[in-house]
Amino acid sequence: MSDAASSPAKRARTDTGDAAASASSGADAKPILYSYWRSSSSWRVRIALESKGIKYEYRAIHMLKDGGEQLKDDYAALNPMRQVPTLIVDGHTLTQSMAIIEYLEETRPSEGASLLPGNAVQRAEVRAIAQMISCDIQPIQNLRVLKKVMSEVEGADAKNAKKLAWGKWAIETGFGGVEAAITKTAGKFAFGDTITLIDVALVPQVYNAGRFGVDMTAYPTIARVAAAAAEEAAFKAADPAVMPDSA
Amino acid sequence: MSDAASSPAKRARTDTGDAAASASSGADAKPILYSYWRSSSSWRVRIALESKGIKYEYRAIHMLKDGGEQLKDDYAALNPMRQVPTLIVDGHTLTQSMAIIEYLEETRPSEGASLLPGNAVQRAEVRAIAQMISCDIQPIQNLRVLKKVMSEVEGADAKNAKKLAWGKWAIETGFGGVEAAITKTAGKFAFGDTITLIDVALVPQVYNAGRFGVDMTAYPTIARVAAAAAEEAAFKAADPAVMPDSA
Repeated sequence: MSDAASSPAKRARTDTGDAAASASSGADAKPILYSYWRSSSSWRVRIALESKGIKYEYRAIHMLKDGGEQLKDDYAALNPMRQVPTLIVDGHTLTQSMAIIEYLEETRPSEGASLLPGNAVQRAEVRAIAQMISCDIQPIQNLRVLKKVMSEVEGADAKNAKKLAWGKWAIETGFGGVEAAITKTAGKFAFGDTITLIDVALVPQVYNAGRFGVDMTAYPTIARVAAAAAEEAAFKAADPAVMPDSA
Repeated sequence: MSDAASSPAKRARTDTGDAAASASSGADAKPILYSYWRSSSSWRVRIALESKGIKYEYRAIHMLKDGGEQLKDDYAALNPMRQVPTLIVDGHTLTQSMAIIEYLEETRPSEGASLLPGNAVQRAEVRAIAQMISCDIQPIQNLRVLKKVMSEVEGADAKNAKKLAWGKWAIETGFGGVEAAITKTAGKFAFGDTITLIDVALVPQVYNAGRFGVDMTAYPTIARVAAAAAEEAAFKAADPAVMPDSA
């Protein structure tokens, strides 16, 4: 266990204020992350920022309050898909977690840890496994799809049961492929002994697996490497439980 | 209209044979693409290969025959998520369309067209919009999810109606964000006047929109730029209709 985050204190909260107005932050300003504590995609970007030692301002977007703050028009001016995260960095407003992380890698290659290997083939392998999670698992069990699935049945109990069954199915279907893939690549972490983009995507996905009741004994390599990654300082600092908006 | 593909002839067909055995193709061999004619993700890689002028061998994986050739164990040895595409290139077996395209960009920067801009901020913008499609739209309306959705109702008519309604919902929800995004970035194509990764993802998605009955008049910028891209030679050469396995 890393000492750095062994006694987690919540980050200072910054009120959201007028989202659109902040898009004009200058190139030298501290990056601003629009995040929801339990959003997998926000969590990935928090891990990347912490891995690179980049200080940032946290702005909470509550995905459930008032029907979802991410759906409001002032936020959509920043993020046309009405999702978190959005990162304002170097004077630019960036969206989509994996595109944001690639940008941080490209513009800060020597700051903190690199989340992509130096070799093109290995980068392709890392991106592919990360995309199994970011394209083929997480979006299928995210809030937007769960709301749709729940809308198709009546009654709170039925909605909750449908939500859990759907999320469990989405994660289990995908984890079969991820487990097969990382069984060939894993060392201490998912791809050898260095943290990569795979671990960044995997740790939040394993957290979701827990919420949906997935039996992780079926995915022993995923369980092992995700537990190892979660002990790293950058992952502890990015954990939902220490975010200012955690419930 | 480009002359190069104005009279489309189907590519020569290569029998699939034993998928796993081919993974040992040497580094100097012609790339081998495992593809299904109507798979959006396969189509993206075909466009990228054509854009870079890379000759390749086409191996059809029939996603419907025998319950889906992509689900067989010999194919899963190549692609742990049991999906198309898989590209064997430079002696390596690569999966996930967007990771494959990034690899082709990195290893063949001066061959044919570049699908990513030279500037880090623009690359982040292009990747983000491409990921709106590759993460937030296509996977939610792909065959695996449609099969799940159809499994929840009884009867062929109900299954078909459910499939169409689900796919239409998934695409319309996402196209709202994509339209808003590219309204700010589009020139002749989705990001200025040069073909990018966005167009590569968008053209197959617009084709799917047609299959699911999406009214494209609600997305005029998407409709316009996708039509323009589809006229480019690389897009014509990669079109499902000219694939050897097209129905």
